[in-house]
Amino acid sequence: MPTPLHRLEAWQAARLLARRELSAEDLLRDCLARIAEREPELRAFTYLDATAALDRAVALDHGPVHGLLHGLPLGVKDLFDTADMPTGYGSPIYAGHQPKADAAAVALCREAGAIVLGKTVTTELANMFPGVTRNPHNLAHTPGGSSSGSAAAVADAMLPLALGTQTAGSLIRPAAFCGVVGYKPSHNRVPRAGVKGLSDTLDTPGGFARSVRDAALLGAVLTGDARLADPALFEPTRAPRIGWCQSPDWEHADADTEAAWFQAERALAGHLLAVELPQALVPLTGIQKAVQAFETARSLSHERRHHAAHLSQALQALIDDGLNITGAAHAHNLQATWLARAAAASLFDSVDVLLAPSSIGEAPLGLASTGDPVFCRSWTLLGLPCVHLPFARGQRGLPVGLQLIGAFGDDHRLMAAAHWVHARLLAG
Amino acid sequence: MPTPLHRLEAWQAARLLARRELSAEDLLRDCLARIAEREPELRAFTYLDATAALDRAVALDHGPVHGLLHGLPLGVKDLFDTADMPTGYGSPIYAGHQPKADAAAVALCREAGAIVLGKTVTTELANMFPGVTRNPHNLAHTPGGSSSGSAAAVADAMLPLALGTQTAGSLIRPAAFCGVVGYKPSHNRVPRAGVKGLSDTLDTPGGFARSVRDAALLGAVLTGDARLADPALFEPTRAPRIGWCQSPDWEHADADTEAAWFQAERALAGHLLAVELPQALVPLTGIQKAVQAFETARSLSHERRHHAAHLSQALQALIDDGLNITGAAHAHNLQATWLARAAAASLFDSVDVLLAPSSIGEAPLGLASTGDPVFCRSWTLLGLPCVHLPFARGQRGLPVGLQLIGAFGDDHRLMAAAHWVHARLLAG
Repeated sequence: MPTPLHRLEAWQAARLLARRELSAEDLLRDCLARIAEREPELRAFTYLDATAALDRAVALDHGPVHGLLHGLPLGVKDLFDTADMPTGYGSPIYAGHQPKADAAAVALCREAGAIVLGKTVTTELANMFPGVTRNPHNLAHTPGGSSSGSAAAVADAMLPLALGTQTAGSLIRPAAFCGVVGYKPSHNRVPRAGVKGLSDTLDTPGGFARSVRDAALLGAVLTGDARLADPALFEPTRAPRIGWCQSPDWEHADADTEAAWFQAERALAGHLLAVELPQALVPLTGIQKAVQAFETARSLSHERRHHAAHLSQALQALIDDGLNITGAAHAHNLQATWLARAAAASLFDSVDVLLAPSSIGEAPLGLASTGDPVFCRSWTLLGLPCVHLPFARGQRGLPVGLQLIGAFGDDHRLMAAAHWVHARLLAG
Repeated sequence: MPTPLHRLEAWQAARLLARRELSAEDLLRDCLARIAEREPELRAFTYLDATAALDRAVALDHGPVHGLLHGLPLGVKDLFDTADMPTGYGSPIYAGHQPKADAAAVALCREAGAIVLGKTVTTELANMFPGVTRNPHNLAHTPGGSSSGSAAAVADAMLPLALGTQTAGSLIRPAAFCGVVGYKPSHNRVPRAGVKGLSDTLDTPGGFARSVRDAALLGAVLTGDARLADPALFEPTRAPRIGWCQSPDWEHADADTEAAWFQAERALAGHLLAVELPQALVPLTGIQKAVQAFETARSLSHERRHHAAHLSQALQALIDDGLNITGAAHAHNLQATWLARAAAASLFDSVDVLLAPSSIGEAPLGLASTGDPVFCRSWTLLGLPCVHLPFARGQRGLPVGLQLIGAFGDDHRLMAAAHWVHARLLAG
């Protein structure tokens, strides 16, 4: 039986679309059928415009080939502004809000030929209060967050690609829980204009896909780095040197992550070098928490002044934490961040990438919590590119995986290594 | 003759207002009278709401004291969103645009008791195409940009304080041309949520005032660092150690900046140490240009796709420059930026602050160009806090001054030193 269109990898579909061997309309209709079947249970979307998407698909089929994403359906986390779709940021404060312009990342994807099919569920203002989306592997479990709908939709083959953002662990964690590839590019390589701002030091747009190569294709458009879309990137001439980095937060890992960890050790034997974090990088998890709380509390100054009744208790608590941090302490935390970012460069002196845990374990039961981003916080603070690789199952049968981390700005090298590593993890 | 209310320093007015020895309404009415007299010539505002401001002043006079800016009229560059005033970003694309929420920096100022009187002229999307504002010292000259209206309004005593932003030299240059204090805080200390994003690596909100102490007061609210509002900060127990840093761009300085430079050398004799930039910091001006062009071209993806006819030729040219830079080159520039930011810390090993040129010279004649930000580019790229100190006049009688630069995150130390230095420059 051939692969159904909605399960095609994005890079394969893109190649067929560019050669006119596949029509954007056919691909889209297959994705729409999948969505019609699954969305009532999964609840990945806050808004879906099938008619506009079909019009766009037909226009793409009859016009010139636009770019790398020509004809690919795309889901957009509802934290990105869209000029033609309401954008609610996961908050009742913004119910029905219609922005005037597309976020820059959305405009870049559209320029490259992507078909924005709809807006996907985000947690409240990309924080901890959950949305309605469920985990496609078991509807009783959280999909993770804050990019909940994007991760779930891609995992469930509703769409090949979707946009998300990460401030603590909002790309890597839902990717882990839903069993897809999640890609957080190097900080500031993807424009944030038109994304609801929470933390200037941390917020990073990125995306979800079902393969490393697909995530790299999306990354090529988002970062403008053509190397990420070069097929040669995925035919490496040598194996990557992989740093084996349990991280100072390892004690939080549960049995499922531990099992995946040692499974990876076997699969990658001979290519691993133990890497210990320098002392300067150990306290970063705590610093990230403080930076996020301080900056979120201040970025949401309008909302907390005028719409406090429409903020969840969880977000209100984070804001209160942030307001209790002094500006002097924040300055100190930012200074430490800059020094740590410089120190992190030396992590890659003898390895190409680092392998580290993505999450505590499988997706937690229930929808009340989207899980703990503890294993993502320090990498986000460092601004390093990260990619989650799903390859195992936990005791409840839900996905488990690990993340690979690259040097700042070396996203193409990270993705090349991730492709190599992922193949071995899936085989091993 | 007593100082007219509209010429009071902000910190003095704030003290009187907090003690109820001055009413917000009286102060505001005096500013409004000044605006009525001068605005037809100066054209600093795109929008002014005297009625709402008076309502707010009366409410503040009859309610509790709000915070550090209680009762102070504030101008807001029209690049910051305001929930109750249209926000046009200096572009016909956004004429009449009404945002849903206040930018975070605006909300913080309002929370601290500031009265937002109106929106001030920005150049087109905070870039080089000028607005209609004129220089208050000579209407035939540019006020500088992109924060043109804010600088001119504060210089002309229409308002004690105003918000601006800097991506290349958009705070320091108009401050220099209009003869006011301009303050660019350390990067990411002031939230950018709700400010039209041009360059994530560079964009920095800040403000204008007529004294260092006033700028620090505004900075205390914007950064949340209470030290900036502590009167003890301005009673230093020792003189600052000042690095004497002509900068690699010194060849661009004209006779007026040169004269100011040597005047400062005399006034600060005994406190100056020559500082040479390390080689790593020399190419930063060029890197800043490339980073700005690349990021602006991508941040404005929606506008260039859908509203190209409403972009000026100047902005279109910058966008074209940016689109011609590869993503790989940009990654390299960001890596260089991170290394330079770490290297810059050592500049402050033996000095507290650096003294450097702010502008080529006086404000150029005519309104067609807002001048060249060459002397600001590298400090903006480094993310260091900067403050412009006006103290001299050029050959045409227009203001000239210099900027003081602090270590990252050490804004309070910078402002303390700036207060000390400014007093000596004005005396000497």
